[in-house]
Amino acid sequence: MSDNQADLILHARWVAPVAPDATVLEQHAVVVRGDTIVDLLPSALADQQWQATEVRRLDRHLLIPGLVNAHTHAAMNLFRGLADDLPLMTWLEKHIWPAEGRWVSDPFVYEGTRLAAAEMIRAGTTCFADMYFFPDAVARATLESGLRAAIFCPLMDFPTPMGSGPEDYLRLATDAVDQWRHEPRLSLGFGPHAPYTVSDGPLEQALTLAEELDLQIMMHVHETAGEIQQAVEHNGDRPLARLRRLGLLTPRLMAVHMTQLLDEEIQWLAETGTHVVHCPESNLKLASGFSPLYKLRQAGVNVALGTDGAASNNDLDMIGEMRGAALLAKGVSLRADALPAAEILEMATLGGARALGQESRIGSLQAGKQADLVAVDLARLETQPVYDPVAQLVYAASRDQVTDVWVAGRALLKERNLLTLNEAQLVHNAQQWQRKIAGESQ
Amino acid sequence: MSDNQADLILHARWVAPVAPDATVLEQHAVVVRGDTIVDLLPSALADQQWQATEVRRLDRHLLIPGLVNAHTHAAMNLFRGLADDLPLMTWLEKHIWPAEGRWVSDPFVYEGTRLAAAEMIRAGTTCFADMYFFPDAVARATLESGLRAAIFCPLMDFPTPMGSGPEDYLRLATDAVDQWRHEPRLSLGFGPHAPYTVSDGPLEQALTLAEELDLQIMMHVHETAGEIQQAVEHNGDRPLARLRRLGLLTPRLMAVHMTQLLDEEIQWLAETGTHVVHCPESNLKLASGFSPLYKLRQAGVNVALGTDGAASNNDLDMIGEMRGAALLAKGVSLRADALPAAEILEMATLGGARALGQESRIGSLQAGKQADLVAVDLARLETQPVYDPVAQLVYAASRDQVTDVWVAGRALLKERNLLTLNEAQLVHNAQQWQRKIAGESQ
Repeated sequence: MSDNQADLILHARWVAPVAPDATVLEQHAVVVRGDTIVDLLPSALADQQWQATEVRRLDRHLLIPGLVNAHTHAAMNLFRGLADDLPLMTWLEKHIWPAEGRWVSDPFVYEGTRLAAAEMIRAGTTCFADMYFFPDAVARATLESGLRAAIFCPLMDFPTPMGSGPEDYLRLATDAVDQWRHEPRLSLGFGPHAPYTVSDGPLEQALTLAEELDLQIMMHVHETAGEIQQAVEHNGDRPLARLRRLGLLTPRLMAVHMTQLLDEEIQWLAETGTHVVHCPESNLKLASGFSPLYKLRQAGVNVALGTDGAASNNDLDMIGEMRGAALLAKGVSLRADALPAAEILEMATLGGARALGQESRIGSLQAGKQADLVAVDLARLETQPVYDPVAQLVYAASRDQVTDVWVAGRALLKERNLLTLNEAQLVHNAQQWQRKIAGESQ
Repeated sequence: MSDNQADLILHARWVAPVAPDATVLEQHAVVVRGDTIVDLLPSALADQQWQATEVRRLDRHLLIPGLVNAHTHAAMNLFRGLADDLPLMTWLEKHIWPAEGRWVSDPFVYEGTRLAAAEMIRAGTTCFADMYFFPDAVARATLESGLRAAIFCPLMDFPTPMGSGPEDYLRLATDAVDQWRHEPRLSLGFGPHAPYTVSDGPLEQALTLAEELDLQIMMHVHETAGEIQQAVEHNGDRPLARLRRLGLLTPRLMAVHMTQLLDEEIQWLAETGTHVVHCPESNLKLASGFSPLYKLRQAGVNVALGTDGAASNNDLDMIGEMRGAALLAKGVSLRADALPAAEILEMATLGGARALGQESRIGSLQAGKQADLVAVDLARLETQPVYDPVAQLVYAASRDQVTDVWVAGRALLKERNLLTLNEAQLVHNAQQWQRKIAGESQ
């Protein structure tokens, strides 16, 4: 291949590379060779300097790095809408946990993850961090979809349909790491469920293994006030203090939710480089509390954005989640200038990449990074006029304005058409699962 | 026309009539004659009992009453994204008010309202309550679009491009009432801007005229804490207490925003039948505070839902606003069971109709009411599976799943195509306005 030969050139009306600068470039082109971005330059220069097999003109579009959904339980798409508007413990104990106990299996996780992957592709997500059972099924569904995923293998003290206890979960996790870690679009990690479901021993083992194997750890932490109160009553410590004592607060940890935080705790996170994953819609829907996003950012904490699972959101729409995060941060901080649109886009892309330890590979449109790209049509009347393309994306666009998605240089969505998954088949299969699940719960 | 002859029969997979019951009917049909719903019955019976010129089968769809956007400034669509992420007073004083002073005119309002009307139609709104300048331009744009509107004519103490002061505004308002009130799809009302911009005299005059002419009054009230603090410092009263003293707290008043409310004030609203219009996304984006939606509803206050204008939202998407309202109410009340999906849908339809004094004409799918109907495709993978159609609408659907819209029996949107307005022309005109406006502000 000659030096000026590429596979794909995308000319766009606007490009938001996210890094090194948060500026918006007009009439620029992204040049892709194989799975990698090799150049980003003005369109006029691209025509002179590069040749490519495929050239696309995105004259109505904003081109952004693929969105990173930094926390979800993809397979729970099959439980979407099963139990809404219920108090948290009723929701968990009477609906979600029994449904999981009855239905979660390798085929359930495979089918639910495929449905979720299709939804995420159509809404501009190119990488998702998943925390659920049966990681092999998640891996197979992800590879089929063409998406990139970070798969966090479950760990908790009690038995589930997947394993008998901590030793079993840790063995299954290291097996999954062996099996899948060499797939370039997959990364593996440990997903201890929450401080209240995992004892010190298994947590320390997971940390040791994560350091040996160079993996990230994802955990629900300080999701609700009740969880903290229980911990304090039980052993005198707030959960974050316990994790700190155990050495968990490091750049390896993605602490999800964090709705309850003392100023001192925010300082710990900043000092240790611990990542926070913010899931604003889930926190609202389950009435868990408000994560202090503005304070976290002011302290210099890296924050990624996640949808959580479809049973508590109820969609996997990162554009909607960006809007929710931006609006809520202003409301909670009582500052209309908190978390401007460009900073929210950074959280939803590079912030997620950093949390996954993958900021050198994904999260921005820079030469040398993976070609994970999303084109959003801003010429629809819903986003007109365009004074500021990134503000239109965050505050006015909807997921259906995502027209094209590439992961590692491969097109997964073309003019709204899924190229790797079949919508009719996914809907048919979802309806079959629904009949089974609803039939039994009635 | 024989007794069993109708114009239109809509068979739907699910129908949510909103009233008299909040239940969801399966495989039912809505029968329309002229501008009116004449029957709602099981599809199998409809085939036996009715004949119609047009029969539609909406096998993938949930059919709902048209959404009522109970507070917007439609023409501000042309300012969408002009100034985001700014503190409230900077936003108003440095951007919005100067832009309005420079640009707002009859042609601006006409064009901005047409753009907004198209956006609202495509997102399932069939009636909007508008509060802006140049009501004649709003009326003309509305009639052209086919939508239904309640037009609230401006009133404030100071001059604007539209009028010289209170006397002038009141005269212009009564002229507009004379001119437009007999259009069946229009209703008129008084729109005093806010307690801090309208003195007692003009407010009392507006109330007297509203009672004589049987009109509603819409006013921004208790939008921010600052507004209340200023009023207390200035004359000792909180604004709501002043409105109460002036006799404004009646079922004629639509009090918009209401983010700051004492328990005693909530009681006044309940006792007097004053309506609240809740605009959750605008309140968040401008960091105005949290309206206590759950407390208002517990007290029996009628609450309608509005998007506010596109300069502070930044869209006119009532499906998104329903989701925002539902999620925020749970977060603020710390109750996951607050404001279930069916109650949110009721607020966004019949709640709005009540606030406008039009609950006998619109807001639910009942024989005798106007045929304002919206079909939402739930068979897309983003809303699969369907355990509860109304939950899917509120928590998972996006505006692009609205496929068909009828107002007064007339189709305005058919399979996503606008029938009364031309998208390409609207976008072209919006871009022309943008070049003028952005050119001058740079």
